[in-house]
Amino acid sequence: MYGVILAGGSGTRFWPVSREQSPKQLQKLIGTGTMIQNTVQRLLPLISIENLYVGTHQHQAIETLRQLDSFGFSPDQLLAEPCSKNTALAIGLMAKVLAEKNADAIMAVFPADHVVSKPENFIKVLQKAETLAQKGFMVTLGIPPNRPETGFGYLKQGLELEDFEGIYRADRFEEKPDISKAEKFLEQGTYFWNCGIFAWKATTILKELQQYAPDIHSQLETLRGCIQNSSGKLNHLELNAKGCELFSSLPSISIDYAVMEKSSNVVMIPADIGWNDVGAWNALDEVCEKDSKGNVLTGNILAQDCSNSIVKGQNRLIATLGLKDTVVVDTPDALLVCAKERSQDVKNLVESLNEKGHQEGKRPATVKKPWGSYTVLDLGPNYLLKRIEVLPGESLSLQSHQHRSEHWTVATGTAKVELKDETHQLKTNDSIVIPLNAKHRLGNPEKELLVIYEIQFGEIIDENDISRYDDRYGRC
Amino acid sequence: MYGVILAGGSGTRFWPVSREQSPKQLQKLIGTGTMIQNTVQRLLPLISIENLYVGTHQHQAIETLRQLDSFGFSPDQLLAEPCSKNTALAIGLMAKVLAEKNADAIMAVFPADHVVSKPENFIKVLQKAETLAQKGFMVTLGIPPNRPETGFGYLKQGLELEDFEGIYRADRFEEKPDISKAEKFLEQGTYFWNCGIFAWKATTILKELQQYAPDIHSQLETLRGCIQNSSGKLNHLELNAKGCELFSSLPSISIDYAVMEKSSNVVMIPADIGWNDVGAWNALDEVCEKDSKGNVLTGNILAQDCSNSIVKGQNRLIATLGLKDTVVVDTPDALLVCAKERSQDVKNLVESLNEKGHQEGKRPATVKKPWGSYTVLDLGPNYLLKRIEVLPGESLSLQSHQHRSEHWTVATGTAKVELKDETHQLKTNDSIVIPLNAKHRLGNPEKELLVIYEIQFGEIIDENDISRYDDRYGRC
Repeated sequence: MYGVILAGGSGTRFWPVSREQSPKQLQKLIGTGTMIQNTVQRLLPLISIENLYVGTHQHQAIETLRQLDSFGFSPDQLLAEPCSKNTALAIGLMAKVLAEKNADAIMAVFPADHVVSKPENFIKVLQKAETLAQKGFMVTLGIPPNRPETGFGYLKQGLELEDFEGIYRADRFEEKPDISKAEKFLEQGTYFWNCGIFAWKATTILKELQQYAPDIHSQLETLRGCIQNSSGKLNHLELNAKGCELFSSLPSISIDYAVMEKSSNVVMIPADIGWNDVGAWNALDEVCEKDSKGNVLTGNILAQDCSNSIVKGQNRLIATLGLKDTVVVDTPDALLVCAKERSQDVKNLVESLNEKGHQEGKRPATVKKPWGSYTVLDLGPNYLLKRIEVLPGESLSLQSHQHRSEHWTVATGTAKVELKDETHQLKTNDSIVIPLNAKHRLGNPEKELLVIYEIQFGEIIDENDISRYDDRYGRC
Repeated sequence: MYGVILAGGSGTRFWPVSREQSPKQLQKLIGTGTMIQNTVQRLLPLISIENLYVGTHQHQAIETLRQLDSFGFSPDQLLAEPCSKNTALAIGLMAKVLAEKNADAIMAVFPADHVVSKPENFIKVLQKAETLAQKGFMVTLGIPPNRPETGFGYLKQGLELEDFEGIYRADRFEEKPDISKAEKFLEQGTYFWNCGIFAWKATTILKELQQYAPDIHSQLETLRGCIQNSSGKLNHLELNAKGCELFSSLPSISIDYAVMEKSSNVVMIPADIGWNDVGAWNALDEVCEKDSKGNVLTGNILAQDCSNSIVKGQNRLIATLGLKDTVVVDTPDALLVCAKERSQDVKNLVESLNEKGHQEGKRPATVKKPWGSYTVLDLGPNYLLKRIEVLPGESLSLQSHQHRSEHWTVATGTAKVELKDETHQLKTNDSIVIPLNAKHRLGNPEKELLVIYEIQFGEIIDENDISRYDDRYGRC
């Protein structure tokens, strides 16, 4: 069985921890790893790492690869999409890739940013799913509901399969219901949550797409031909220019709407797997451990007389007093304080931030780069201070700046600095001046992290003031 | 008339903006200046700056002087106290100083951290107070109450003075009442809030102290003899070692308990001056402008669907959603989120922080020094990054460090660096390394602010790792 992890979410509901440029699946919200790391980890008992594929937005490709590196995940199992097009297109293209690789390939599809708190049950259910997919079924997992949730779609349980006890035809897909309908569903006991986990033969889903979504299916062959290895050293899969254009022109539609609701070939496995989509901050109530007063507290926190609140910080001290049902999320450059019942509306709040031009809506304080990251620590009228971290063996592009000079001091590690025609090795407490217009490159030749402080000086200080001459990540 | 401003408050109720090392009177909470600047400003129509005296804790002396510098306030009108001893002792000592200077001196006493929103009325009331003080009365201002406040003392209005219409004997001082008593006071209409503003002849209060607080009065002569100019360049008044010891041994008692409650010589002027003691965060509701939903918002804030809340930030973005009656106060190193009705308990919260060893309870992120300030921006395993601001014409002590080397880079301004036997002038983008154990001094020889980034490197990084050889502020 092959696993396809769809990691395209934007996760604005988890602002300010998640941002457009560092969405929810790349964040540590619950458990030991990031959401996508946890997702991979829970699949490994059944699907080996070389049979796992990931689809993600191109902006998240490098960070996603870094997070999966320790699993031995190969870059050429990641497909970077040029834009977000919902699930039907991504699933179709992955099915095409897998069918070509193995005509009998079974393909299971997983969201990257959900929680499954009963991993053993999960694996058992997936084994059943594999068997059913072999038989040519379109398999869905149905989560037994425990509340009249209006935020999910529902599956109606149909007839039991003849040869498979406890497995049912999916009679109907119900879109997100209103509350009275949701209450009826819960009462009747024959409705299950659609959790977005599917299994099928790659060839089966392609046939279904051909029948129900021919506009997408008809382009998959061409799109497949446009997949190439990315330039630069990372070598993940991406589309060439023609492929990007075609991809962008195709409809943005979910696999549920495109196929599942129409197909008569869908079966449902009731799946008691402790599933949670962790849709917004208040979901932490359901998936995290709470203190005796019902609080979920993470970080450097002193909470006095608080109850049923979620407080998540980092290093900064957070003191809370007398809070009830409140969410406090603190990050280095932005703070959210929110009534818990309004958690779903954080999405709209982020839209307002973006409309008003607040960069904090999209960009995190620490900006990830293929070579590491940078964080702005201080800003003056004609200067700016950054902490720059360069990962072992990585290096920035060969570059120059028209409007600023720079001053680098090594805090820890070893820096290899190319400046004009010379190369310098800098250690802790060494510094170097990069003059205006001088070609330069910063690299980390050692196996430990390199941290430098960069002070930029100039009349204009702007990230876009950069000319790149050579770049191992193909960004010239 | 002489004015004595008592600036001894610790202001823990305004944490995290105020800290033990930078209390409320030194903060900008309302209006254009800091609380003490606003206090001075409102007195100037009646009392010239050379007739204003300030008593404060020695730790706040230098910052207080800086804040009053633009008024032309002379350092030798500030008396730095070695410890907090409430108001009786400070008032007695100031009376001693003033009586010596001018046997007929009228002395008015003001807290440094209150708000007066009707400054014209205030001046008129003070003029009356001056006249009454001339006649030998102990004058208090009585604030007409508008609510049954249990946090203040009350004055009971007695007989009207024969020659002064609308001015009354103070029949009784009532300590903070319980709520039912406070409600009765409000109903009766003859009780006024004691706001801690007094006026009297210096010789009158000394006589009263002699009668009612002889333990304090008997030491004033000796204490007066122990006042000296501080060493170093700032020249404010302080007590010598003997004086400090004596001062510390004397009782900590308010002038109300020590004298006012006992004296039969007290008169009260009902004072409709828009007074507010700004006792805790919720008081901002009464003294600040609110938006249409009753919110007081200061800083970089996006508030959606919030009401009756107080949100105070600095540069960091704060987004609030659906909050009601909540206080959010954000500073670079500490955040408070608090139910508004619990504002008074912030004081206890800060005690808990101190007990648990959180430095943020006492020390602000930007630490004020006689020469300027420093802020820790980043911290690694064996390094630490500081932003250092040196005021024009100031310089740090000649010093060395046993366990760390330092790397300085000038961000803006000009640095004069003494290192071993040489002197260097550093401009923007210049840097210098200060080796382990090397004697060095940093100064700002120019008229603009000097900002440097200092990176400290060492196995041990500790503020106490400093040997001082010479210091213009007398800190050797």
